Amino acid sequence: MLDYSLGQGAYENWVLAERDFSALHLGKSETVMMLGNGYLGLRSATEEPYLNEQRNLFINGTFNQADKNEVTELPNAADTTRLDIRIDGQRFSLEFGNSEDYSKQLNLKNAELIRSFVWTSPKGKELQFRFSRFAFFDNLHLIGMKMEVECLSHAVVLSIDSGIDARMSNSGVQHFLEGDHRIIEEHFLQLTQTTTQSEIDFVHNAVHILKINDERITGKADKDIDRRRVWLSFEAGLEPGDSFEMEKLITVHTSRDKDRDAEPYSLMHLQKHSHAELKKLEEKGYEKLAESHRLAWQKKVWDEYPFEVESENPTDQLALRFSLYHLTAMAPAHDDRLGIGAKALSGEAYKGHSFWDTEIFILPFFIFSAPETARSLLTYRYRGLPSARRKAIENGYAGAMYPWEMAWPTDGEATPEWGGIDIVTGERTKIWPGLIEHHISADIAFAVYQYANATGDKEFMERYGYEMVFETARFWASRLEWNEKRQQFEITDVIGPDEYKEHVDNNAFTNYMAYFNLKLAMHYAEVVEKKNPELFAKFDVEQAYCEWHSKAAQLHLPKPREPDSILPQDDTYLQLPDIDLGKYKKQKKSRTIYRDYNPEQVNRIQVTKQADVVLLFYLMEQTFLKDDFRFTQQAKRANFLYYEARTLHDSSLSLTTHVIAANDIGEYEYAYELFRRACLIDMGPNMDSSDDGIHAAAIGGIWKAAVFGFAGVRQSEGVLKINPRLPVKWKRMQFRIYWQSQSLQFDITDKLLKITSEGNKSIHVETDGTGYELLHSLEIPLADY
Amino acid sequence: MLDYSLGQGAYENWVLAERDFSALHLGKSETVMMLGNGYLGLRSATEEPYLNEQRNLFINGTFNQADKNEVTELPNAADTTRLDIRIDGQRFSLEFGNSEDYSKQLNLKNAELIRSFVWTSPKGKELQFRFSRFAFFDNLHLIGMKMEVECLSHAVVLSIDSGIDARMSNSGVQHFLEGDHRIIEEHFLQLTQTTTQSEIDFVHNAVHILKINDERITGKADKDIDRRRVWLSFEAGLEPGDSFEMEKLITVHTSRDKDRDAEPYSLMHLQKHSHAELKKLEEKGYEKLAESHRLAWQKKVWDEYPFEVESENPTDQLALRFSLYHLTAMAPAHDDRLGIGAKALSGEAYKGHSFWDTEIFILPFFIFSAPETARSLLTYRYRGLPSARRKAIENGYAGAMYPWEMAWPTDGEATPEWGGIDIVTGERTKIWPGLIEHHISADIAFAVYQYANATGDKEFMERYGYEMVFETARFWASRLEWNEKRQQFEITDVIGPDEYKEHVDNNAFTNYMAYFNLKLAMHYAEVVEKKNPELFAKFDVEQAYCEWHSKAAQLHLPKPREPDSILPQDDTYLQLPDIDLGKYKKQKKSRTIYRDYNPEQVNRIQVTKQADVVLLFYLMEQTFLKDDFRFTQQAKRANFLYYEARTLHDSSLSLTTHVIAANDIGEYEYAYELFRRACLIDMGPNMDSSDDGIHAAAIGGIWKAAVFGFAGVRQSEGVLKINPRLPVKWKRMQFRIYWQSQSLQFDITDKLLKITSEGNKSIHVETDGTGYELLHSLEIPLADY
Repeated sequence: MLDYSLGQGAYENWVLAERDFSALHLGKSETVMMLGNGYLGLRSATEEPYLNEQRNLFINGTFNQADKNEVTELPNAADTTRLDIRIDGQRFSLEFGNSEDYSKQLNLKNAELIRSFVWTSPKGKELQFRFSRFAFFDNLHLIGMKMEVECLSHAVVLSIDSGIDARMSNSGVQHFLEGDHRIIEEHFLQLTQTTTQSEIDFVHNAVHILKINDERITGKADKDIDRRRVWLSFEAGLEPGDSFEMEKLITVHTSRDKDRDAEPYSLMHLQKHSHAELKKLEEKGYEKLAESHRLAWQKKVWDEYPFEVESENPTDQLALRFSLYHLTAMAPAHDDRLGIGAKALSGEAYKGHSFWDTEIFILPFFIFSAPETARSLLTYRYRGLPSARRKAIENGYAGAMYPWEMAWPTDGEATPEWGGIDIVTGERTKIWPGLIEHHISADIAFAVYQYANATGDKEFMERYGYEMVFETARFWASRLEWNEKRQQFEITDVIGPDEYKEHVDNNAFTNYMAYFNLKLAMHYAEVVEKKNPELFAKFDVEQAYCEWHSKAAQLHLPKPREPDSILPQDDTYLQLPDIDLGKYKKQKKSRTIYRDYNPEQVNRIQVTKQADVVLLFYLMEQTFLKDDFRFTQQAKRANFLYYEARTLHDSSLSLTTHVIAANDIGEYEYAYELFRRACLIDMGPNMDSSDDGIHAAAIGGIWKAAVFGFAGVRQSEGVLKINPRLPVKWKRMQFRIYWQSQSLQFDITDKLLKITSEGNKSIHVETDGTGYELLHSLEIPLADY
Repeated sequence: MLDYSLGQGAYENWVLAERDFSALHLGKSETVMMLGNGYLGLRSATEEPYLNEQRNLFINGTFNQADKNEVTELPNAADTTRLDIRIDGQRFSLEFGNSEDYSKQLNLKNAELIRSFVWTSPKGKELQFRFSRFAFFDNLHLIGMKMEVECLSHAVVLSIDSGIDARMSNSGVQHFLEGDHRIIEEHFLQLTQTTTQSEIDFVHNAVHILKINDERITGKADKDIDRRRVWLSFEAGLEPGDSFEMEKLITVHTSRDKDRDAEPYSLMHLQKHSHAELKKLEEKGYEKLAESHRLAWQKKVWDEYPFEVESENPTDQLALRFSLYHLTAMAPAHDDRLGIGAKALSGEAYKGHSFWDTEIFILPFFIFSAPETARSLLTYRYRGLPSARRKAIENGYAGAMYPWEMAWPTDGEATPEWGGIDIVTGERTKIWPGLIEHHISADIAFAVYQYANATGDKEFMERYGYEMVFETARFWASRLEWNEKRQQFEITDVIGPDEYKEHVDNNAFTNYMAYFNLKLAMHYAEVVEKKNPELFAKFDVEQAYCEWHSKAAQLHLPKPREPDSILPQDDTYLQLPDIDLGKYKKQKKSRTIYRDYNPEQVNRIQVTKQADVVLLFYLMEQTFLKDDFRFTQQAKRANFLYYEARTLHDSSLSLTTHVIAANDIGEYEYAYELFRRACLIDMGPNMDSSDDGIHAAAIGGIWKAAVFGFAGVRQSEGVLKINPRLPVKWKRMQFRIYWQSQSLQFDITDKLLKITSEGNKSIHVETDGTGYELLHSLEIPLADY
């Protein structure tokens, strides 16, 4: 169980902690306390090893396909954090002896992991341990570690094996060929390995600085090299009162690094350069480096994304900081060839692949908080156009059909073919989304549209954005199927956002989003034709425009049934039997329905995995589709209630959309309740839920729910709307967003909305239907709600 | 520390046990208690996992080269022995709580592993555990396991995860592509995987039989499939007095299996067939299968290789049984495409490769105890002829140059290029034997000669043996280098048996063995020409004969120096400085000299890793090289004393040769002391020495030292000589050997040698220089010695 109360004084609501050690529940803190800087992600496995640990280091973008039966994935790089510690020859482990004052803390403010405790060995020897660790935010290649031991009672002999271990794998899949490993100048360790298929070189360096009673010791360590390992063994005798300190500075570089692009690449140069770099870092030592890391983090994160919530539940404030911490740790702001994986860089699950999670759940934060990073993430998708075109051709379509799971931009579709067990047949279940979950292409077009509206970044649109929208529109035009009977185009045999329904026809979300994509392409074509005829000619979309126009006009857009206005999720959903979902609605773990039904059976019940129709309502309202998606407030309410009753939120993407929707229809208490549940997806008491990695989309959703939900910030057709509805427990919220390159500071209570702009442009905003012009600041009294 | 005293009554001196559990020293019992049947080798890792365990299952011959930087090796197959056991939700581990009456026993008589103890959980709940396990000796594909738990005090909930886990690797090297895995008929697990390069399919099957208080329960288990894993989870509530039992029957088959050769191979067929087979085995259950396994073991091992020693140290008897047990477990008697690895099937080290260890240290046992198996092992070498010819060509030679390390017969040289750390440079050391340790080819010729003499197996010689000797002779003829100054042929830049001397010229062992090989080829050519002219024509060795003759006559054969008769190990050895080796002679671990000197430095000291010149004396005496190797008893003695003082026995191959040599020169007490040390290589108190696997050559050496040393059995030019010199502590030894297809039973005391023959042929034997004709039995009084 995580403890939120450990931060005191300046660190109040800044610290996520574990106060008890449990070897059965290592995954929780490994994941939620992971360290990262967008380049690397390091799970916070403890230094001393445990059986059920998951020790991972991922370098963003270093995808490798281990063999033809596997899909490409982010490989688990060599480990450098494990320390084999022995006290008087016996293995040190918290499973033995007795530990007091235990805490493992992630300090969000400093982005530093601290673990400390007093440990009494089974033989009664008392030692004070303190471990600290950070992933540097200035030099993205550096990890700093420190171990401090104070001998409190009897004399002990402390020994430590520490090195670089390339025996790691991804659940048994080995992605690396063994390369050189060596010890340079007696104490610098270096290990090189190369991915098997993508041929990316990884160069790991490590150096140790040892001190006893603050005096550096340079005594001889035992050196050893074995298969895929190089390490040193230290030994120190400690008397009562003695303190021992070991700093370990670690770097990792790869041949894929963006900062290598400038020079012609040579492995030998990288080995030499990285060694020389670490030699310089060694001169600074842990403390100086940690201090500059803390300053960098303050400047680039907390000064950039200020977010204050005054809530009766202080956890709400912590949850927002937790969200901002992880959004930063996962964002590859330094490299526009990289995306964000569904588990970010915190676990093997989903293999580092980017899903629609990025565009719909994570990108909004960046669009409104770090537009440059949002642009970088969309550029990543632009770089994926060639392989999206390839996928379209392979499937008999035109334009760009984005892969459901995307890895390195040129990798193409990366969705695996087989999943977990089918409890009926005893075989693995087939994973269909890579084949038939098509809405991703429209989701990306939608994200381009949102980014363009919020930033006004014309340069991006002309270089990348328009082309992405045109190409996805071409795809949809080719994807539509003519139904002779209906005399309409339709989209059959798909999976919509609700993945509990496979092979459905006319999933409302998919059809409307395809329609939106076509209309958006038409709109952009008109804009480009008018403003930049030369570019328009280059895009060569004149003929396509006509096709988009005629097909959009004839596309089947599901209509609400009468009299209850329920929009059918697909052609058959509303005809399926209902079952009593009570048991699954109350579940403590997700997807328990699979214990009773196999996918085929779930397919034939009115049960929804995650926001689908409800999400559609939310997205459509932010577009120009007024005429085609004219739903009353009553219909919104009816659909929310209907689908909420049937939605198990078995995807972590689901809850925060329902928060926003509930808030929109005035179900404020329920919205807050769902928000609290959403915050608990990773931070909550279920100690296993984060084992496989952080829920990146849910992390983005926390920010979204607060800003788009409670603060009521929403853009619609390029207009910024703010309709705050703070939860009863919230007194005030303050945060900053970017709009049209201007930084806007919001200060909201239940009575008053204050906006301060740092820019000089006047901005039109709307609150509760009334328009305002914001130049420098604006105060809008809020009506009761 | 191993305990030898646990076997009682009928099992006295049959049981090797551990009485204390130590998580720091798991390797010892994993190795020395390994289970095997020549087809598969299973390290005896405990069911519940520990951090430092080494869990291995090897299937002989299934070599795979994981990538171009690696050499081919025996892959670690999927694990089926691990059980994740929880008591009331807490992980069961002997590192927690309290255990009493602990023992882990290998019963050599039954070839069964038993582990039992009473465990009190940290919460005070008392349980009696008993685990048993065997590797079936009739159906080579089957492993049987049983777990019994009796609830002694409070009620507990016992839960177990058990399945097939293909996440195993060889120190991080993954040899398998993931294949199908499934659960058939609710409780049969099946997992298929295929090696990456050699494309060998492995099909693993497992089934569980659960009982509570002897009643089979078939309650629903949770089923799960994940990446490279398939498993079941069981749960049972136990009240005080309740007993729980789980049998797990496991099979493994591969597409390389010999018993698959008959039918056209199909993976689907193998999957179906192996599943059907396990279904039948399930009907029998653990106890019936274990009983038939015990009977098979008795019949095929203890009835075949009776060996009784009456010694004041009962351990001597146990050591002989230990040797016979492992010689059986390692021998692939079922398949003449397979060899014996230097660590047999008990560890990753040496990668399952066959070295000269087989011919010189292991094969003698089989020649004299199981000639069919000896023939099979030599046939394996015959099958390696094409790749030995390839190696010769690649190195610019003719004939057959055997690889220093041999894997699958067609794999060619399999010696890796890089080893452990060079403490001076910090880099890995280069492994030279694959390039320049050439004596292996002559060692194989010597083994053919020994086999032919002992068995008189003409059919083997005509099909395989002669060709091997001719081809290796062709190699040597091409390998010799003319030294203009000496006006002799010589052999430069080699490693002899003493691997502490790299790049030496005219290593005495190599030169004499090459000479022997040439002379043997000439001898065999004469024999074949006379007895089978047609075959002689086919071999086409007439011209080669002349070359052998002239080159052998001009080959430099090092001569003893005067006046002390020391035979120089090579051209420079006797000129190197001596250092004080006292520290290393007293070492508890081997190769401690590398802590102070790097290989280059060791190369320049009069220090010898292992029997070299001493081994040469021992081998030469068994040949026809009377004229060229006429050393006096005094010279033997001088050389033994000289080299013994300089030999660190840092190879486990070394000691037993020195046992025999010491006995030969009348140093009986020292011989026995060395014998005791040799027995302790695996069975001794050094708890780390067997971590990497059993010392197969040392195991063969135990038998050799007893039979060739103490019993003084030796063949010389086809004559069986028996000169018993029992150690003072031995009252009597009885054993059986085969000679010329006849089984001879020996019964030796210090006064009397009794030999009983089961055959009808008269056999000429010599004892202390006197010849005897043995028809049915013979009693020869022994002189005092």
